[in-house]
Amino acid sequence: MQHFWLSILSGLSLQLVLPCKAEEGLEFPNFDGKDRVLDINERNYKKALKRYDLLCLFYHEPVPANKGLQKRFQMTELVLELTAQVLEDKDIGFGMVDSQKDAKVATKLGLEEVGSVYVFKDDRVIEFDGELSADTLVEFLLDVLEDPVEIINNAMELRAFERMEEDIRLIGYFKGEDSYFKAFQEASERFQPYIKFFATFEKSVAKHLSLKMNEVNFYEPFMEEPAILPGRPLSEMDIIEFVNQHRRATLRKLRAENMFEIWEDDMDGIHIVAFAEEEDPDGYGFLEVLKDVARDNTNNPELSIVWIDPDDFPLLTTYWEKTFKLDLFRPQIGVVNVTDADSVWLDMSNDEDLPTAEDLEDWIEDVLSGKVNTEDDDEFADDQEDDHYVLEDSDESPGPDEEDDEDD
Amino acid sequence: MQHFWLSILSGLSLQLVLPCKAEEGLEFPNFDGKDRVLDINERNYKKALKRYDLLCLFYHEPVPANKGLQKRFQMTELVLELTAQVLEDKDIGFGMVDSQKDAKVATKLGLEEVGSVYVFKDDRVIEFDGELSADTLVEFLLDVLEDPVEIINNAMELRAFERMEEDIRLIGYFKGEDSYFKAFQEASERFQPYIKFFATFEKSVAKHLSLKMNEVNFYEPFMEEPAILPGRPLSEMDIIEFVNQHRRATLRKLRAENMFEIWEDDMDGIHIVAFAEEEDPDGYGFLEVLKDVARDNTNNPELSIVWIDPDDFPLLTTYWEKTFKLDLFRPQIGVVNVTDADSVWLDMSNDEDLPTAEDLEDWIEDVLSGKVNTEDDDEFADDQEDDHYVLEDSDESPGPDEEDDEDD
Repeated sequence: MQHFWLSILSGLSLQLVLPCKAEEGLEFPNFDGKDRVLDINERNYKKALKRYDLLCLFYHEPVPANKGLQKRFQMTELVLELTAQVLEDKDIGFGMVDSQKDAKVATKLGLEEVGSVYVFKDDRVIEFDGELSADTLVEFLLDVLEDPVEIINNAMELRAFERMEEDIRLIGYFKGEDSYFKAFQEASERFQPYIKFFATFEKSVAKHLSLKMNEVNFYEPFMEEPAILPGRPLSEMDIIEFVNQHRRATLRKLRAENMFEIWEDDMDGIHIVAFAEEEDPDGYGFLEVLKDVARDNTNNPELSIVWIDPDDFPLLTTYWEKTFKLDLFRPQIGVVNVTDADSVWLDMSNDEDLPTAEDLEDWIEDVLSGKVNTEDDDEFADDQEDDHYVLEDSDESPGPDEEDDEDD
Repeated sequence: MQHFWLSILSGLSLQLVLPCKAEEGLEFPNFDGKDRVLDINERNYKKALKRYDLLCLFYHEPVPANKGLQKRFQMTELVLELTAQVLEDKDIGFGMVDSQKDAKVATKLGLEEVGSVYVFKDDRVIEFDGELSADTLVEFLLDVLEDPVEIINNAMELRAFERMEEDIRLIGYFKGEDSYFKAFQEASERFQPYIKFFATFEKSVAKHLSLKMNEVNFYEPFMEEPAILPGRPLSEMDIIEFVNQHRRATLRKLRAENMFEIWEDDMDGIHIVAFAEEEDPDGYGFLEVLKDVARDNTNNPELSIVWIDPDDFPLLTTYWEKTFKLDLFRPQIGVVNVTDADSVWLDMSNDEDLPTAEDLEDWIEDVLSGKVNTEDDDEFADDQEDDHYVLEDSDESPGPDEEDDEDD
C-alpha cells in the first residue's frame, strides 16, 4: 500500500466530526492510518480466501503514471481502508488485485470487470458495481453478511414485506427447513443482496398471499400482483432460471449499490429515464402515473424505465441538470443515449397538470418506435438550447399534423 | 485557502468513478482544484452577503497546530470546496470564518456555535448542524433554495402530503395569496428546511383535512391526528410561537441534516434511543409498536424517543455496536447518557416476539422515574459485559418482586 499517501491523508473521514462537540454517541470514524487492505498476489490469494468469512477484492487497472489519476486511485484505496477499519470486527478481508501485475490471479478468481469490487462468500462470487464510497460499500457488505432468506412469521412482518414495492422479491411457503426450502435458499444465495428472498412456514401468512405449499411467488417492483413460478416443488435451477429471465423490471429504481450495473444494462444503447422526488408532492404524483404505465406494460420486454430519485444522489443532481439541460426541482422523463449522454425530454413545462398515464404511454410508444430519439434533431442543435418533445394538447391548439409533434 | 493541500488532494471525490466505464450519464464530480471558498473577514463579509442569493459560512476554530487535526481541517475545507463546485450555477457563496481571527465578524453575523455551518438567505440565518459531508450539505442547500411553502392543489398531492409521517408539517387553508397566507409564509421561513409548510387554496383539499378558512393544522411526526393552531386568522408570531412550543416530538427520527442538533437537545442528559431498520420485517414491527407508544404518550413533555434507522448511517453502525455493545441486525431500545455514552438496553434477546406496546410503556415509565438508568449498575460493571434490563415475563416466571426487575 502507498504509505506516503495514506499518511498524508490520515485523519480523513468522508464525514467529519468537529472536535468541539461535547456530547458523545455520534462519532464518525476517522481513518486511523493502519493498513488493512492486502496486496493480493499469487502467493497469498488462497490463504486470504480461506481465512475470512467474506473476502472483498477491488479489481483495478495498473496504478496510473499520471499524477491526477494517481491521486484518484489513492482515494479509492482510502475508501477501502476506511471500509476495512469500520468493519474490523466482522471477519471480512480486503484486498486489491492489479489487472496487469496480477492477471493470473484475476483469471483464477474469475474477475472480469476492471473497476468492480468482488466479494467472495463461501463458494460464491458477488459483484459490486455501485458507487465506490465507504457508505455504500459498508451497507452492501453488511447486507451480504445477513442470511439470504428472511423468514416471515406473522401479520406484522407480512405488512413489512408488502411495503417493499421497490425491490424484486420472492417468497416461498414451505413446511419447514426441508429439501425444498434448502433449494430455495441455495437459489437465494446466487442473488444476494440484490434480490430479496423471503419464506414462510405459517399457514396464515401463506393463505394471505394465496401461496400453496412449496409454491414461490415472484414480485416485480411496483406491480400489484406477483407472478407464480411454474411447477412445484421447485429445484434450485428452476428458481435461478426464472429470476434471470425476469429480473429486468419494467420500472426499476436506480440505487447507489448497483447503479453502474443498471446503467450498463441499457436497451439498444438508450435508457428511458424518469426523475422524480418521491418526497415532493409533484414528484410523488408523477411517480404514481409512471407506476400505472409500468403496470399496463409489464409484459413488454422492450420497455424498462429507470427511475432516479434526485434526493438519493445529491452530488449528481447538478451534473444531471447541466448534462441534460433540465430543472430537477420538477419531475422529468426523457431518453438518454448512454454512449454520449445525448438526450431528449418530454416537455411538461407549460402544463399546470402532470401528463396522464395515456399521454405517457403515447410518448413511450413513440420512443420505442424510434419516432422520438436523441439523434433526429442534432442538425438543428444551433436553433435550440435543449431538446424537448411537446405533447399534443388538443384543448389548446387546433391540432397540428402528427409530423410536427417532435419539434419544440 | 491552503493551496498546497488542495493541490495534493485535488482529484478527490468523496464518491469515485473509475475511468474504465464506457457509458456516460453517471459521472460523480471530482474536485477540480479551483478555489471557490472565501476567507471571510471584516473587509469582505458585507459584500459577500449582498452578492449571493445564499451565503454559506463555516464557523470554525483556529487552524490547529497539531498535524493530525490540521489534516482533518483541510478535509473539511475540501468538503466545502466540493460542495461549492457542485452548486456552482446556483448563486451560492461559500466562506470560512475563524472564531479567533474573525471574532468581530462572527459577532456581527451572530455566529455562535463553532463547528456549525450558517446559511444566510435574505434577512434570515439558518444553522446547519448536521453531518459535514458534501452529500448532506448539498441536499440541505438545495432544500433551502426551494420555496418555503409548498402548495397542495389536488387529491394526488394531498396523498403525498399524508404519507410524510416522519416530518413535522403544517398546512393552512387560505383564500389565496392574501395577508394571512403571507403571515404563514413569513413564519415558514423561520423553520425552513427543518419543518415543512404546506398551504392549499382548494376547498376540496381543505374539506378532506377538515380545515376551515385561515386555519392551520400542525402534524407531529407519526401522529394520526393533527393539532389545530388556536385562533384564526393567525399572525406570523402566533405560528412561530406554536411551532417553537411543539417542535420536540415524542418520537423523532435522526437525520444526517440535523443529527448533532437533535443529539444536543437531550432530556436531562439522556436520550431514549431506539434502533430499528424500517426495511427489515423485525425492525418494521418494532417501529409500529414504538409509534403506538408515542401516540399514547404524545402529551407527555418528558418523553422524546430518538429513532435511528441504521441503514441511514452505515459508517456509524459498527461504532454504535461497539460503544453500546449491541447487535444492530436486531431492533434495540435503550437509554444513553450523552455525556459519556454510557447506556442500558432493554433485553429482547430471549423473546421470540417483540415487546408489546404495554411492555415498552412499562419500561419507559421506569426510565422516566429513574428506576432504569445508566448509573446504577456501574459498580457491578465487572460482573457483566453489558447492561441489559430484562422484562418481567409473567407467563414463564412465578412473578418476581418488583424490586428485582432491574437485575439481569
